[in-house]
Amino acid sequence: MVFKVTVNNAWRATRTLWLLVLVSLSVCICVCRASSPQEDSAMENIDTEKKAEESHRQDSADLLIFIMLLTLTILTIWLFKHRRFRFLHETGLAMIYGLLVGVVLRYGIHVPRDISNVTMSCHVNASPATLLINVSGKFYEYTLKGEINANAVGDVQDNEMLRKVTFDPEVFFNILLPPIIFHAGYSLKRRHFFLNMGSILAYAFLGTVVSCFVIGLLMYGCVVLMKQVGQLGGDFFFTDCLFFGAIVSATDPVTVLAIFNELQVDVDLYALLFGESVLNDAVALVLSSSIVAYQPEGNNSHTFEVMAMLNSFGVFLGVFSGSFALGVATGVVTALVTKFTKLRDFQLLETALFFLMSWSTFLLAEACGSTGVVAVLFCGITQAHYTYNNLSPESQDRTKQLFELLNFLAENFIFSYMGLTLFTFQSHVFNPMFIVGAFLAVFLGRAANIYPLSFLLNLGRRNKIRSNFQHMMMFAGLRGAMTFALSIRDTATYARQMMFSTTLLVVFFTVWICGGGTTQMLSCQHIRVGVDSDQDNSMSVVEGSERRSTKQESAWLFRIWYNFDHNYLKPILTHSGPPLTATLPPCCGPLARFLTSPQAYENECQLKDDDSDLILNDGDISLTYGDITVSTDATGAHTSGGPGFAGAASFDDLDRELAYGDHELVMRGTRLVLPMDDSEPPFTDPHNRLQM
Amino acid sequence: MVFKVTVNNAWRATRTLWLLVLVSLSVCICVCRASSPQEDSAMENIDTEKKAEESHRQDSADLLIFIMLLTLTILTIWLFKHRRFRFLHETGLAMIYGLLVGVVLRYGIHVPRDISNVTMSCHVNASPATLLINVSGKFYEYTLKGEINANAVGDVQDNEMLRKVTFDPEVFFNILLPPIIFHAGYSLKRRHFFLNMGSILAYAFLGTVVSCFVIGLLMYGCVVLMKQVGQLGGDFFFTDCLFFGAIVSATDPVTVLAIFNELQVDVDLYALLFGESVLNDAVALVLSSSIVAYQPEGNNSHTFEVMAMLNSFGVFLGVFSGSFALGVATGVVTALVTKFTKLRDFQLLETALFFLMSWSTFLLAEACGSTGVVAVLFCGITQAHYTYNNLSPESQDRTKQLFELLNFLAENFIFSYMGLTLFTFQSHVFNPMFIVGAFLAVFLGRAANIYPLSFLLNLGRRNKIRSNFQHMMMFAGLRGAMTFALSIRDTATYARQMMFSTTLLVVFFTVWICGGGTTQMLSCQHIRVGVDSDQDNSMSVVEGSERRSTKQESAWLFRIWYNFDHNYLKPILTHSGPPLTATLPPCCGPLARFLTSPQAYENECQLKDDDSDLILNDGDISLTYGDITVSTDATGAHTSGGPGFAGAASFDDLDRELAYGDHELVMRGTRLVLPMDDSEPPFTDPHNRLQM
Repeated sequence: MVFKVTVNNAWRATRTLWLLVLVSLSVCICVCRASSPQEDSAMENIDTEKKAEESHRQDSADLLIFIMLLTLTILTIWLFKHRRFRFLHETGLAMIYGLLVGVVLRYGIHVPRDISNVTMSCHVNASPATLLINVSGKFYEYTLKGEINANAVGDVQDNEMLRKVTFDPEVFFNILLPPIIFHAGYSLKRRHFFLNMGSILAYAFLGTVVSCFVIGLLMYGCVVLMKQVGQLGGDFFFTDCLFFGAIVSATDPVTVLAIFNELQVDVDLYALLFGESVLNDAVALVLSSSIVAYQPEGNNSHTFEVMAMLNSFGVFLGVFSGSFALGVATGVVTALVTKFTKLRDFQLLETALFFLMSWSTFLLAEACGSTGVVAVLFCGITQAHYTYNNLSPESQDRTKQLFELLNFLAENFIFSYMGLTLFTFQSHVFNPMFIVGAFLAVFLGRAANIYPLSFLLNLGRRNKIRSNFQHMMMFAGLRGAMTFALSIRDTATYARQMMFSTTLLVVFFTVWICGGGTTQMLSCQHIRVGVDSDQDNSMSVVEGSERRSTKQESAWLFRIWYNFDHNYLKPILTHSGPPLTATLPPCCGPLARFLTSPQAYENECQLKDDDSDLILNDGDISLTYGDITVSTDATGAHTSGGPGFAGAASFDDLDRELAYGDHELVMRGTRLVLPMDDSEPPFTDPHNRLQM
Repeated sequence: MVFKVTVNNAWRATRTLWLLVLVSLSVCICVCRASSPQEDSAMENIDTEKKAEESHRQDSADLLIFIMLLTLTILTIWLFKHRRFRFLHETGLAMIYGLLVGVVLRYGIHVPRDISNVTMSCHVNASPATLLINVSGKFYEYTLKGEINANAVGDVQDNEMLRKVTFDPEVFFNILLPPIIFHAGYSLKRRHFFLNMGSILAYAFLGTVVSCFVIGLLMYGCVVLMKQVGQLGGDFFFTDCLFFGAIVSATDPVTVLAIFNELQVDVDLYALLFGESVLNDAVALVLSSSIVAYQPEGNNSHTFEVMAMLNSFGVFLGVFSGSFALGVATGVVTALVTKFTKLRDFQLLETALFFLMSWSTFLLAEACGSTGVVAVLFCGITQAHYTYNNLSPESQDRTKQLFELLNFLAENFIFSYMGLTLFTFQSHVFNPMFIVGAFLAVFLGRAANIYPLSFLLNLGRRNKIRSNFQHMMMFAGLRGAMTFALSIRDTATYARQMMFSTTLLVVFFTVWICGGGTTQMLSCQHIRVGVDSDQDNSMSVVEGSERRSTKQESAWLFRIWYNFDHNYLKPILTHSGPPLTATLPPCCGPLARFLTSPQAYENECQLKDDDSDLILNDGDISLTYGDITVSTDATGAHTSGGPGFAGAASFDDLDRELAYGDHELVMRGTRLVLPMDDSEPPFTDPHNRLQM
């Protein structure tokens, strides 16, 4: 009864508070708007300081609108979660609120033209990054913002107000996308991701490229048709079509994944979708930049030329591998630093270091001319796989929570901005024919990605990707933040403007319709929900040898890497894994002793006592450690049964460790070393948190 | 033995890693610098896009330098903490590293002049915020950055490189200071802060104003003397002197407080110092802006005029009260939202809401023309006092940790930037006479703040501020982030440049010398360390009635507020406190029932059972609740022993509740409502965390 009262109370109060927030939002918009026109006659000696202050106040007000939007989204989404409405995700909601505010800004408020912002009749022969202007003896510094389309110059003056709420597109790549992508990488540490690695890589790389070209070709057909009918108002080249194909190939099924998480949908399906979406963002980003880099020599810059294409291909490989290397490198450095210093005694320092190193990846990649967002993704994966194990339990929580929060804020910000920009963007080009063509192409491109690849993958997989899984993956090809960010980055030409407008519609449609229909689609496709990954685990024990051979089959590529990782990388970079003295050949003894942390030896002994109850459910622990004779001689060096053992680290070991990592219990050794760890919060299931 | 090995191992490895970081830092600086000169002949048709990209890369590289600096600081400070070196705080260290990098940037790297950045011979008669430049048919958009001193125009072109690492001073006020100040406010929730509230307010308001005027007058004397000797190279008015007085009156004893925390120095001294430093930042900020607002009419704008002074005083009151009201208002709204919604079931949403609302305070204040930093301070205090109690335990941890991290990063960033700017700032004016005068004035100003005020306060306090406490407070008047941010905000005139250079030296000196000598000073003044606040508490029980009368005496101002807060505000805004139905007069029954949360009734009963062991150590629980007859009639309304009870909420109650809040156990009611709370981390002592 008490609970009932609370809910009603809450419900009533929420409604009041909502009204309050809504009213305050509109008041805030009006107040801020009203403050922007300046009363003073402009052409006199204008006080620069006052103007800068005014501009700052305006900026604060604009940002405040977004903050209020996000607050509203949070409150609404709480209500939805409270009442278990699943048809609308927070991102979809953020878009709706963005749309509403966009309508208000566009049609509701009339701001008189700011007459002080006139075009200077200043004829200079260059456009330097910094400009010093001499106004009657005083020098003013101006910074270059960018080139403006000649026919948009009139708009600039008319719609100063709308342009104010338009962010520099680079904000997305430099501030909002990095935490989103890092978080995705940082939460990739899942057993089923690694078990399905081959398929995920195939979908992400091959699939995205296929999808890009299919969409590009279809759109080119569409554009040619439009030209015939006379519907095209500007240039639209084949590279533009390919570019469009690349940007709409980045899937972002955040809505679907949230529901999967909540309903505990089959873990393999989850891993396939999540892994694919994380990696294909990176692929689409690099792909689009290498398409932009395609510049054949000669007069006509839009002909086919082998050299230019090879050049583009080289750019793709170079940027991708460069970003990959940088991301992994900073991840490895962080792992080493956290392993060899006892920074974990001071959680604040540890968390700060982790945050700074992850951020520096982005900056380093950008400074080197690579792609920061891609580097950050691989940095995130490396941090999750290695560094995470070295962190103190509290820092593990802190970093997870920090990036979760940043991801949440950035994501909702992008989606509400998306809604807003449908009305506030100045140069929309909505072409019905292009839009219909694009929807068709996006659909077919996704189909050309999923079905043929699944067929090919199923030839090699024993644990087949069933047809209902394929349909679900087809259906879950939502477009989101990355597609939007890529399409808004450059809206200078007619083709890009048309692409941007169409992309917005594609995102809206997929997020609302496909996202909203996820539960229906799940039940329609008879995909089992409520799968506990633990239960799944214990079932596998019953299935026994049959299942093991399945895995051996499907993950053959991964097994080689796994052995290397388990025997060398993990021991070098973390406190877990077998001691290096046991896995490296005897000649590397001193190095191995230097790199092996004392915990590794402890882990070895420990496996046989206190942790064994956690992992002994497979019943074959002896298989892993039973055949190693570990003896400590006088010098403290460990000798093992020989290097042949490395290959013998069996697949069960892999499976167990991954399952283990899944439950975030890897830091077994660390608990012994720190006497103050007793006061730390105990292990809490990370799934609970991701689910929120 | 194992531990020994680890330490040595760690030590060795750290040294290697350090070298690595240092080398990578310098390589990074060199690489970034090397990439900046452009090879192409400039005066041709320059590709804007390429230039923007180049500029972006440059920005990334510059930011990377700072990130690397912070990383280095973290690693070093870990080592210091590990070895228990207390003579150098992380902020002092950050300054040293900043200095080193500043030297390298200034003298180590020679960058050829960027010839493309020339002054345009463009004579226009206005300086609009946005400028459109027509370069041979193409339009480029420029945004106004600010006015440049006419004689600094040459420098602009020469030292483009140094100017690149110079941030816009508004970055400090809009990005770095808000989290620092909010964190200070958010961690103010301490029993001893409230018990010493009167003294703290006196030091912060009266003391800062006294210090400002004393320093201002002394500096004016110094300036007049300098003019006589012919040492002054430009104008320096009395308002400039007062401005200098205001900015160096903001104390920031972060170094001292960190040591106090570590050594567990007397809690009253800690509360006095911390409370004063938090509030006087706000006072100094508003004071300086009202001094800038002093503009008498007439020809000579630097004469004394009563109207202008009253106007300045009005600005002070207006801005301060406006910011206060805005800060408290958003805090109250957040408290209400978190109280009346069950947002605490979703910790991510709760934390995000908390973060956004706190941020919106800043933006709202800035948009309204108030001071965001001051608003954020009072918002932080309100959030700590009310909202914090409504949050779920996990969100309490999350928010604390989040703002702790932001505070740490922002603080160290500012201090390392301070070190850097000593060498990279272009227009330093170091005048030995002014510097000596300033040091003397700062010393005397602090003395004129502490000693007379302490004498006056001691007249009213029974728990006297002893002379060794006074000396310690005198000694702990370090200058820090706020002083720096205020002095770098405007460096256009000769006077401001001289102030800035001098301020830098004052900050360096106080942070290194006073900060480093804290432990020596503590032992020299015989101030007791290792005081456990719990122990202090139990001692008070022995002291008995004597102590109670002490408190009654010292906190008379506060007692009135406390009763109001405990009986009305706490029950309205949080789940704790007595039910409103018991404290409000019966005529407000329906409103009281609406506003009282069910937990309040539960708390009432609960007090008599499960939590009583926690608070019964004073032995007089009956004093609080014994004299209220709470009976529930048929309508569910609670009737109390009458409104006279409100005054009867005794002082012991106050003390107990504050002690209680100190141990962060206030959310007793919430634990019953949430069935999922079992999985939450248990209560951990917040002192542990603040101490790190």
